[in-house]
Amino acid sequence: MTRQLSTTERTTIRRGSDRARTERSDLHAALDTGLICHLGLLVDGAPRVLPTGYGRSGDTLYVHGSTGARSLREAAEGVEVCVTVTHLDGIVYARSLFHHSVNFRSAMIHGRARNVVDDDEKLQALRVITEQLAPGSWDHARQPNKRELAATAVLAVDLAEAAVKVRSGGPNDDAEDVEAGEAWAGVLPLRMHWGAPESAPDLPAGFEVPRHVGERQYQR
Amino acid sequence: MTRQLSTTERTTIRRGSDRARTERSDLHAALDTGLICHLGLLVDGAPRVLPTGYGRSGDTLYVHGSTGARSLREAAEGVEVCVTVTHLDGIVYARSLFHHSVNFRSAMIHGRARNVVDDDEKLQALRVITEQLAPGSWDHARQPNKRELAATAVLAVDLAEAAVKVRSGGPNDDAEDVEAGEAWAGVLPLRMHWGAPESAPDLPAGFEVPRHVGERQYQR
Repeated sequence: MTRQLSTTERTTIRRGSDRARTERSDLHAALDTGLICHLGLLVDGAPRVLPTGYGRSGDTLYVHGSTGARSLREAAEGVEVCVTVTHLDGIVYARSLFHHSVNFRSAMIHGRARNVVDDDEKLQALRVITEQLAPGSWDHARQPNKRELAATAVLAVDLAEAAVKVRSGGPNDDAEDVEAGEAWAGVLPLRMHWGAPESAPDLPAGFEVPRHVGERQYQR
Repeated sequence: MTRQLSTTERTTIRRGSDRARTERSDLHAALDTGLICHLGLLVDGAPRVLPTGYGRSGDTLYVHGSTGARSLREAAEGVEVCVTVTHLDGIVYARSLFHHSVNFRSAMIHGRARNVVDDDEKLQALRVITEQLAPGSWDHARQPNKRELAATAVLAVDLAEAAVKVRSGGPNDDAEDVEAGEAWAGVLPLRMHWGAPESAPDLPAGFEVPRHVGERQYQR
């Protein structure tokens, strides 16, 4: 069995750095394969962390929510936010409890939120947010009308300041624990998979599951 | 096919409320079935959201990290933190893009972080954090020594102020979209599963995968 050595890399990305192109592609990969993000912002001076949908268009990250949500109203005023997307890939069992760890990929974006008010940009943002969670839905479901657009808050965050962190591979045990040979060590991989689609009971009889939904359960 | 109606419930929990017992059990269930949390705190006045391990002991939540991590040093000074645990259960496809949603369960804890300095409490905290990610490891792997304990920062947050939010069931489409019958609607469930354990290549020959690891792939 061949195994890569365990690695933990943290890459802080700022525009114009020498390694900018590679780092950008790592960042985009971590973002583009996620489903939800955790949005951090201040409400009454205290941090709040909200799970929410997001999408990426070029070097702009979009998150959305109801205009009725106070947290998003606060963020719309241009406050600093942090958006983190995390993939948990497995549990790392080491010979010592101290070296137990997890394999993961995470992207962390810092920036000042910009409230998206232009209807064209808002539609483009909603398209990438939709395609992130439900690829194919944008061309299948009914488009937002004016009332729905107005009821949806969209925030934009520039990807200028971002960090990518990745841990992969097996445990980093101390030599004496490896020699002692008393505990098991290795990795238990964690994977997500889609179940079979559950059609709404009020669909017309015989309404088939569309391919963009039905085939998802066979994708990685 | 029978389906429950879609529901979104948000429950804010404070000690002493009438529904305290039920709400507590919902909160504990959301926390106890998670693997990692997202810890929000302020660094230089800006929010930061960090994925990290956690565990619960009674009405105390523990998170841990390296004492070298600046974010945790800041939190150890008693600042306000927010800890969010999110389970993504599925994608809700509606006839309209506006009503697309996700099924999820989330717990959000607010509080002032307390730095755990007592060795007995720190060991108990590390035990629950370990058992959250790797049940069975506490009794299998080598216990932390004094140096390792000193190198591990543990923060405690009281569960006094917490909110649980759950969305389940199918889409909430507008009546006219249901009548139009033009788009599919339903839920695509999302599940996590464990892969087969990958033993470290430097284990003694024939070292068997222990039951607490090997049987995990057959658990839900």
